[in-house]
Amino acid sequence: MHDVTSVELGIDVLGMNKKLADDNRNLLDRHNIKAIDVMGSIGSGKTLLVEKIVDILKSRGIKCAAIAGDVSGEDDYNRYKSHGIPVENINTGKDCHLNAHSIEHTFQKMALDDIDVLFIENVGNLVCPADFPLGTHKRIVVISVTEGDDMVRKHPIIFGLSDVIVINKIDLSEVVEVDPKVITADAQKLAPHTKVILTDAKHGDGIEDLITSLEL
Amino acid sequence: MHDVTSVELGIDVLGMNKKLADDNRNLLDRHNIKAIDVMGSIGSGKTLLVEKIVDILKSRGIKCAAIAGDVSGEDDYNRYKSHGIPVENINTGKDCHLNAHSIEHTFQKMALDDIDVLFIENVGNLVCPADFPLGTHKRIVVISVTEGDDMVRKHPIIFGLSDVIVINKIDLSEVVEVDPKVITADAQKLAPHTKVILTDAKHGDGIEDLITSLEL
Repeated sequence: MHDVTSVELGIDVLGMNKKLADDNRNLLDRHNIKAIDVMGSIGSGKTLLVEKIVDILKSRGIKCAAIAGDVSGEDDYNRYKSHGIPVENINTGKDCHLNAHSIEHTFQKMALDDIDVLFIENVGNLVCPADFPLGTHKRIVVISVTEGDDMVRKHPIIFGLSDVIVINKIDLSEVVEVDPKVITADAQKLAPHTKVILTDAKHGDGIEDLITSLEL
Repeated sequence: MHDVTSVELGIDVLGMNKKLADDNRNLLDRHNIKAIDVMGSIGSGKTLLVEKIVDILKSRGIKCAAIAGDVSGEDDYNRYKSHGIPVENINTGKDCHLNAHSIEHTFQKMALDDIDVLFIENVGNLVCPADFPLGTHKRIVVISVTEGDDMVRKHPIIFGLSDVIVINKIDLSEVVEVDPKVITADAQKLAPHTKVILTDAKHGDGIEDLITSLEL
């Protein structure tokens, strides 16, 4: 019964989300903001990656902002805040993804003319965010080698629609005995159009490659 | 709009799931099966923990079985299969959780009289499975220290309703600079009734404690 209602409901919800996402995209374009939807599992390193990118872009005079999406809490919000950029927090409660409607509301609280690049960190998992585009220019998925080498095989939908796949924490590859080459091969087979970037956010490796791949 | 429809829909779906979960529980009890719902994020080590428990229980003459839940693929199914136990695979497609209805169908394919302990590995994330009890006797959440120390604070619902919280991969605590004591303290504050077990599934540490906490 859950399956049936999901499907019946899905058509309208996804269609309405798509329309609102298009509205968001138009608004972003009018304000010359480039927006990135940062998806990926809990603990994959999404927040730290964005923090590292923000520090570099700031040093180049690019004005960054962030929206932190989580089920609950202000942990990520406070981390972004400490970098001196405008941040908004969205707590989804029971929803396992952001949606275009919540982003539209959040835009109303932000000084959009003062932003060049906006990072939207989605709720941490590899399933729900896939169906709900937010109107961003790029969508990326972050995975950590500590999650194992089967992430892409297990989640073809989210990886298939991403512009960039980031394999993070590669400094831990040996200790967890996971070869990033296996994940890269799976990704290139599933989504040949998608760029795969290897990073070690903790030590700052690969961040420049990621910035280049995002055309920031 | 998504929020409203979710809420309106939620009442019936969750109520119907609860009723089916009760039916599942009655069926399990009639067959003297103890069932464990194994929740937790992708890559937290759910499969390996169950594999280690199964090996120990098998050596004690306890008949185990498993249901592997994933969005896509047969990776976990094949891992369980290699231990010589009955396994069923559930691919949820786009659903980020198992539900009682899918479990009820799966039971019809299993020789329930030949099972003492059944492990049901839920889809990997810390949000969706919380709302959908399956009728198991225990629900556990597995997290890995590699996910960071803020997992419990960020996901109060799933941790609040769990019988056992497993903090896995503690052998990596130092290298990822995450102190299991912080996670344990958060868990004990949020859910004082819940047992917290530290494990290193890869090297077999803490598995006996986990078996004891599950009363297997």
